[in-house]
Amino acid sequence: VATAIEHELRSLVGADGVLPGSATPYLSDLTEERGLGGHADAVVLPRSADEVAEVVSWCYEAEVPIVPRGGGTGYAGGAVPFGGVVLSLERMAAVRSFQPLVWRIEVEAGLRTADLRRIVRESGLFFAPDPGAAEQSHIGGNIATNAGGPHAFKYGVTGAWVMGLEVVLAPGELVRVGGPLRKDVAGYDLKRLLIGSEGTLGVITAAWLRLLPAPEVFLPVVGFYDGIAAGAAALERVVANGLMVAALEYLEGSALAAAGGSFPDGVPEGASFLVVAEADGSRDEAVRLREDVVQALSEGALAVRTPEAPADVAALWRWREGVTFAVTARRGSKVSEDVVVPFDRIAEGIEGTVEIGRRHGLEACSWGHAGDGNLHSTFLFRPGDPEEFGRCERAVDDLFEMALGLGGSISGEHGVGVLKRAHVADYLAPSLVSLQAQIKRVFDPKGLFNPGKKL
Amino acid sequence: VATAIEHELRSLVGADGVLPGSATPYLSDLTEERGLGGHADAVVLPRSADEVAEVVSWCYEAEVPIVPRGGGTGYAGGAVPFGGVVLSLERMAAVRSFQPLVWRIEVEAGLRTADLRRIVRESGLFFAPDPGAAEQSHIGGNIATNAGGPHAFKYGVTGAWVMGLEVVLAPGELVRVGGPLRKDVAGYDLKRLLIGSEGTLGVITAAWLRLLPAPEVFLPVVGFYDGIAAGAAALERVVANGLMVAALEYLEGSALAAAGGSFPDGVPEGASFLVVAEADGSRDEAVRLREDVVQALSEGALAVRTPEAPADVAALWRWREGVTFAVTARRGSKVSEDVVVPFDRIAEGIEGTVEIGRRHGLEACSWGHAGDGNLHSTFLFRPGDPEEFGRCERAVDDLFEMALGLGGSISGEHGVGVLKRAHVADYLAPSLVSLQAQIKRVFDPKGLFNPGKKL
Repeated sequence: VATAIEHELRSLVGADGVLPGSATPYLSDLTEERGLGGHADAVVLPRSADEVAEVVSWCYEAEVPIVPRGGGTGYAGGAVPFGGVVLSLERMAAVRSFQPLVWRIEVEAGLRTADLRRIVRESGLFFAPDPGAAEQSHIGGNIATNAGGPHAFKYGVTGAWVMGLEVVLAPGELVRVGGPLRKDVAGYDLKRLLIGSEGTLGVITAAWLRLLPAPEVFLPVVGFYDGIAAGAAALERVVANGLMVAALEYLEGSALAAAGGSFPDGVPEGASFLVVAEADGSRDEAVRLREDVVQALSEGALAVRTPEAPADVAALWRWREGVTFAVTARRGSKVSEDVVVPFDRIAEGIEGTVEIGRRHGLEACSWGHAGDGNLHSTFLFRPGDPEEFGRCERAVDDLFEMALGLGGSISGEHGVGVLKRAHVADYLAPSLVSLQAQIKRVFDPKGLFNPGKKL
Repeated sequence: VATAIEHELRSLVGADGVLPGSATPYLSDLTEERGLGGHADAVVLPRSADEVAEVVSWCYEAEVPIVPRGGGTGYAGGAVPFGGVVLSLERMAAVRSFQPLVWRIEVEAGLRTADLRRIVRESGLFFAPDPGAAEQSHIGGNIATNAGGPHAFKYGVTGAWVMGLEVVLAPGELVRVGGPLRKDVAGYDLKRLLIGSEGTLGVITAAWLRLLPAPEVFLPVVGFYDGIAAGAAALERVVANGLMVAALEYLEGSALAAAGGSFPDGVPEGASFLVVAEADGSRDEAVRLREDVVQALSEGALAVRTPEAPADVAALWRWREGVTFAVTARRGSKVSEDVVVPFDRIAEGIEGTVEIGRRHGLEACSWGHAGDGNLHSTFLFRPGDPEEFGRCERAVDDLFEMALGLGGSISGEHGVGVLKRAHVADYLAPSLVSLQAQIKRVFDPKGLFNPGKKL
């Protein structure tokens, strides 16, 4: 039997656009592995921006919380509902317009990121952001979290590629912020305020994105080292030598031990640190840059490899994307964060993660986007062991403290969601915390957009 | 005799840090040529961020407006005071720290942009933004206006290179937003809200900037055409062929007539449109790209030139920077705007500018950052001719209407200042105008930061 809320929503978007609040795929995201799950009163699947506006309008009038949902691949619980209506953008996945000759596309929020990348690639273009779960995540969710990815080192995070947004604001108004424009200073940068706001200020329904001519080739170089010191030194040499690589990634010992079994061609004996640096661009330019990268990575390396065939390069990145799952498999579950430190403090951040694990009697590891100083610092636990999980949570407290001590931040790309809310005040000055709360009230006076998140 | 306000300010920053409100260099910016000038109660020149905080604190308590001032090179009147205290950052020009090995610098707001570029260049690095008056403008002012420049086509505008800000907020608190970090999603993007806010939300005192390895060479290609149609077609071919040039500039007929006399090696007979497209990067890569650019620009061209010696390249860009002054000289004064249109509407924007001039009986021209769709559309008038100036103002109204009709915006890089305030409401939805006003009140409840600007 439909509830009253479901009944109301059906009148707005049709019976096939409403699911009961118990529809399990909509109650969790990737934080499910650490036990986080929510509950909802209904799930609504609008087909158009106008329908989104109608749903928001009804919810705002009825004072029902709205939890916008993309692909549900978040690591901070940002899409987990605690009551109210889950508003999934999955049926809004259209390409509204595509002008390949001027490197521009307008897409709806529910388009999967990997689909977007494939569509533009067919016209010789490149959408640079490549967050981890691109086959599942939606571009709208990527924008709402300002998602990163390995190639953010050269190309920047998702927000750098957003020219304009279509968004539904309280109390249910559909507006455009920016447009198909590469520059615009006619007002405060509300677009940038919405980017990364995790659904707490409004619902993103579409975006104008900037594209690039696709690089001709991607030529990664892989270096293996016997520990953090040698590996971090290799990372530093790449940057200190002024090599503008597209990606600069690392895996520390335990992460490499967990994921190494499936590494293409295997991991050399004794390796406990891996670096991937990728040259891209025209073939000539990438080959030239790769030579310099090989030289920078060779000192102190156990082995250096240069996969070149497109299938081998793709296999490497597929493997890299699977690291998170391989680490989980090691003990059954994990608490994985994404702290950021200044690039010159990265060795300390990696060593500090191991040390914090040791202190709490936990297996700890890290991997991530070294060039951006972005560490996926991770502590493993056995599912169903609340004591071990509790130690993980205390380890995370220490991790955040360490990151802030190194001049860093508590999140580079996963966002605050529900998991890191308590830590924001450790990072931001009290006056900034207060400004944020006031900005939230300006956009969302009733506090109905993704309540309990971000702030 | 010092006024009461001067006396109070002297007690905060010393006698040598306070000038009378009549100190003329501080009462105008580049809008002086169209007759805009202001008045102030005092000018204060703090030496440190703490002194800025003390000045703001005193002003906020005494309810005295604060008009932050960089190099005073704005074209929108953003730095023109209408009472209150002009707070010039000119004595805060220190490099606080410079880590060339990790491509990072922390500088005070009053550092001149060209000095910043020279300092990092000595270590083989590159600060990409190159706004027009870089020898006069300050990095703080560039950030406060989110300044652009010719190379924004490839590298983006100033904001793209700001990792963190130090800023004095109401009622006089010195805070950091971001830091030496390449990624950070731990809160709403307050940094981006401050960037481009034209001093209306607080006073920027310092910034952490991201740098790049310097391109080895800059190889411009210049194409001359007999009119807008041929010139715009050349611009479109560069982009449609997927050529990632660093800059893509244009000058239309009257602008070329005004500035052509000083063009290096002269302008060919019959030329009434000029395109500059620049390849940069490693020498090999730039030479390869330049070949493609030459091909794209050659079709329908009267002449194509490829200056290559660094002195010739520098001379070209020096000439380009002087265009604005050459255009002014033509009739004595001008009203120059910086509308933005989608790149595929640029020919219409250029033709429309000429047509609007014709309709109002004015000499009109345009030049600018074609790749970004950013047109410096300009109408000339004789100083001391209020009737002709009035026609210029009506022409600007039509210009903004045209830009919005083409799906564009009223400002790409000059900002709103005092001159474009009345037009913001034509561009932004009423709900966005209201959100902006509320955000202003959140940051500046007494309305003392650069009142009468931006909103």
